[in-house]
Amino acid sequence: MLTLKRIPIDSYRQNIAYLHRKCVAYRLDDFSAVSKIEIHGGIEPLWAIVNLVEDHNLVKPTEIGLSLQAFHQINLPEGAEVTVSPAQQPVSLDSIRRKVQGGVLSAAEYSSIISDIANYRYSKMEIAAFLVASASFMTAGEVLSLTEAMEEGERNISWDWDTIVDVHCIGGLLGNRTDMIVVPIVAAFGLPIPKIAARAIGSPCGTADVMEVLANVMLGEKGLKEIVAKENGSIIWGDYLNLAPSDAVLRAVERPLGVYTPQQMVASVLSKKLSAGITHLVIDIPVGSNAKIRTMAEAMKLRKMFEHVGDMSGMTLDIVVTDGSEPVGRGIGPTLEARDVMSVLRCKASAPEDLREKSLFLAGRVLEFDSDLRGGQGYFEARDILDSGRALEAMNRIIHAQGRATPSALGKLTRDITAPVSGTIDSINSTCIKRIASVAGSPADKGAGIDLFKKIGDFVERGEALYRIHANNQNNFAFANGLAEGDIGYEIASRDKDFE
Amino acid sequence: MLTLKRIPIDSYRQNIAYLHRKCVAYRLDDFSAVSKIEIHGGIEPLWAIVNLVEDHNLVKPTEIGLSLQAFHQINLPEGAEVTVSPAQQPVSLDSIRRKVQGGVLSAAEYSSIISDIANYRYSKMEIAAFLVASASFMTAGEVLSLTEAMEEGERNISWDWDTIVDVHCIGGLLGNRTDMIVVPIVAAFGLPIPKIAARAIGSPCGTADVMEVLANVMLGEKGLKEIVAKENGSIIWGDYLNLAPSDAVLRAVERPLGVYTPQQMVASVLSKKLSAGITHLVIDIPVGSNAKIRTMAEAMKLRKMFEHVGDMSGMTLDIVVTDGSEPVGRGIGPTLEARDVMSVLRCKASAPEDLREKSLFLAGRVLEFDSDLRGGQGYFEARDILDSGRALEAMNRIIHAQGRATPSALGKLTRDITAPVSGTIDSINSTCIKRIASVAGSPADKGAGIDLFKKIGDFVERGEALYRIHANNQNNFAFANGLAEGDIGYEIASRDKDFE
Repeated sequence: MLTLKRIPIDSYRQNIAYLHRKCVAYRLDDFSAVSKIEIHGGIEPLWAIVNLVEDHNLVKPTEIGLSLQAFHQINLPEGAEVTVSPAQQPVSLDSIRRKVQGGVLSAAEYSSIISDIANYRYSKMEIAAFLVASASFMTAGEVLSLTEAMEEGERNISWDWDTIVDVHCIGGLLGNRTDMIVVPIVAAFGLPIPKIAARAIGSPCGTADVMEVLANVMLGEKGLKEIVAKENGSIIWGDYLNLAPSDAVLRAVERPLGVYTPQQMVASVLSKKLSAGITHLVIDIPVGSNAKIRTMAEAMKLRKMFEHVGDMSGMTLDIVVTDGSEPVGRGIGPTLEARDVMSVLRCKASAPEDLREKSLFLAGRVLEFDSDLRGGQGYFEARDILDSGRALEAMNRIIHAQGRATPSALGKLTRDITAPVSGTIDSINSTCIKRIASVAGSPADKGAGIDLFKKIGDFVERGEALYRIHANNQNNFAFANGLAEGDIGYEIASRDKDFE
Repeated sequence: MLTLKRIPIDSYRQNIAYLHRKCVAYRLDDFSAVSKIEIHGGIEPLWAIVNLVEDHNLVKPTEIGLSLQAFHQINLPEGAEVTVSPAQQPVSLDSIRRKVQGGVLSAAEYSSIISDIANYRYSKMEIAAFLVASASFMTAGEVLSLTEAMEEGERNISWDWDTIVDVHCIGGLLGNRTDMIVVPIVAAFGLPIPKIAARAIGSPCGTADVMEVLANVMLGEKGLKEIVAKENGSIIWGDYLNLAPSDAVLRAVERPLGVYTPQQMVASVLSKKLSAGITHLVIDIPVGSNAKIRTMAEAMKLRKMFEHVGDMSGMTLDIVVTDGSEPVGRGIGPTLEARDVMSVLRCKASAPEDLREKSLFLAGRVLEFDSDLRGGQGYFEARDILDSGRALEAMNRIIHAQGRATPSALGKLTRDITAPVSGTIDSINSTCIKRIASVAGSPADKGAGIDLFKKIGDFVERGEALYRIHANNQNNFAFANGLAEGDIGYEIASRDKDFE
């Protein structure tokens, strides 16, 4: 018997058990061989990785400490008595090893892998092994099995309508907040569009981060349904619903690892949309040097994979390939992107034209899921809705229904990064710009980010500002400036070159 | 500026920095995006993964806590002032991502991957990604590059002789302590054999664990050289020499992951032997259901890979394939295996015949590296040395030189596991036996383990003991018994079957 103790350490999507090196109930000198234990005492056994502690103040030999998430999951008070035993390796790890050796796994195997992952029975390195093994190859049938396994484990939302539409952008393109314009257009038209958005994934800012500048995004299923019933649309944060427990665990490894797995992406996107009850989905695949997908060939492969799984699971997909050569709009960071979105909805002359046009294009494709709309009419219908102010009204109703947020200010610490030579902007390095915005504090610091003044093809004079860094925290600001000094992230084709 | 604090948590081959959620010097709300930091203040910047803490008692917002290993590595006193910055992702991670996508990496890329790994710049999941990506395929050239990169990063031992011999067994075969018999035979013959052994890797017991029952195995380079100069042989623990820093980090992930990568194994074994100054090496590849290598085809592939890298790096290899269908000897666990080894060296009638024969066979192959010995004469020479008592004398001199250990007793808690039916032993399940021995406490508890009374082909009566579990810790003993009750690990072809 060990006494339970809460250890205030956030081990991020991994359960850690802290045991004293002289723990009375469990000898674990051969640390590396059996480093997972099962903890009994709660409703279900809890699995955790062991870290050994050498200080009685932290954990006594008669105690077991649990990291914040593990403590939350076991759902027992401090001081409760628990027992521990060496964890049996999850049987599904044998399937992972078969996959590493190039095997093809069955639907039942994917089902038990996903169930073990959702229940925190895998360590992060085991999840990394799964991701990398499946990156090397997966059959179309395996992608379907994985999608269904992930959907199976989720709570499913049911709706009273036959058609539930949505739009999803493959991430990676900076400033690409089209969905926040598509949602009010489609809602104003009258199709239900319950947008369940993500926070930043490998980028300085996600749709949920930007919407949070304007409204509360933490709504449960009940709140979501009420708002969609009344306003046709909503933009909320998906993780708060806890729709996809295995997906959250998988992404917590995939994100910092930076390993891009198209099969994982298809399964992740479609399983979440299926469990959200979406019947008709527009998927935007930006292709270009600033996007996750770099070549048309990759995009076509991804599109086929989406279509196969969509067809087999009864979801209607319309997949469009768009320009991903440079950031969309001007702002990068929650407050800056919210400013761009609202300026498009308000039809301001200063609104970024590329964000407006792309949003109208995508909204048009969504509207054409309505069988009454003639093919090709969607764009014009969307433009009418936007220009008449009906999209802005719909957005304001959605914001009001979700709960309007206190307005947030732009970061007070600013610095303009200027052009080192005169010339035409040749390219913008998204990896570099992304990193500067992240380090400046985006998205956690809503006011932090980058305001782009120049885009590809623009002409700049030497010394003219290319973009402005915004930050609130002095350290973050210094780091971001340091990064920008090392590499401004812009390539300028100097006029002077012609004369050299 | 943050104040350094030692956090008494063993995070096992991964540097963890504990920062308060409200840390004054670094805002890391977007925990997952940038979870690695660089810590400045020591001789070199230290890389660490961040865990967030919510308790002032553990870490204050003005402090930075380091896990035991990280604290050891930064080599500064508690209270020292350090600064932190977001860690640049190691450039070599881009090479890993290329490998994941199926690319072939250059020697320079392997060199920087290995250097970053040895310097703890990779998280465990990044190392898992490297291992799994290289498991799917590596060219022969890549295996050579990896071997050379791993050797390069190591301290190299030089010797005064032209021929330095060694024997290495591919792990996984229980009780396979032939090297502890080969070393004294070869040393008595007069060839220098500085055996640098490992502790348990995915098995209940390694050669270093067994030797430690008899002698001190923690010798530095100076001690090793002195003993080999005087006695021709030595058996010490490799990690104590810290010869292969990257290998230790890689194995700390590979081991619990259980992903078997032949290319990684070749690089790991040969880089360590090269840096130990070995010129002539016998490699034993046991093949069978109880070994790491299950089929002859796998063994041949592995042999070719060893030979290619050996040839290119100027090491003479003699690779033999042996029977791996069942454990060698009787004991499994440090004290039990030491007992078997000494009974062979003492030429006792009760000594396990299979251990004796296999050791003589391997010793013979090593002796034949001597150009004066006629082909095929090695075995007889080895047998003469063993039977004349010269091997025992050599072993006693080596033990004396290394420092004789206090004799350790067998585990006092014992239980005999008996045959459920009468019949002939058909097979022994090594995974099962291995797990029982590990859970009983081997190798950390030197006296714990399993004593096998019956091997394949033996006849047993119902109720007769198959093996005995030894343990010292009551909990471990209970766990081990529970496991054995679930699955005894023996298949018995019942006589009664014939009459059914």
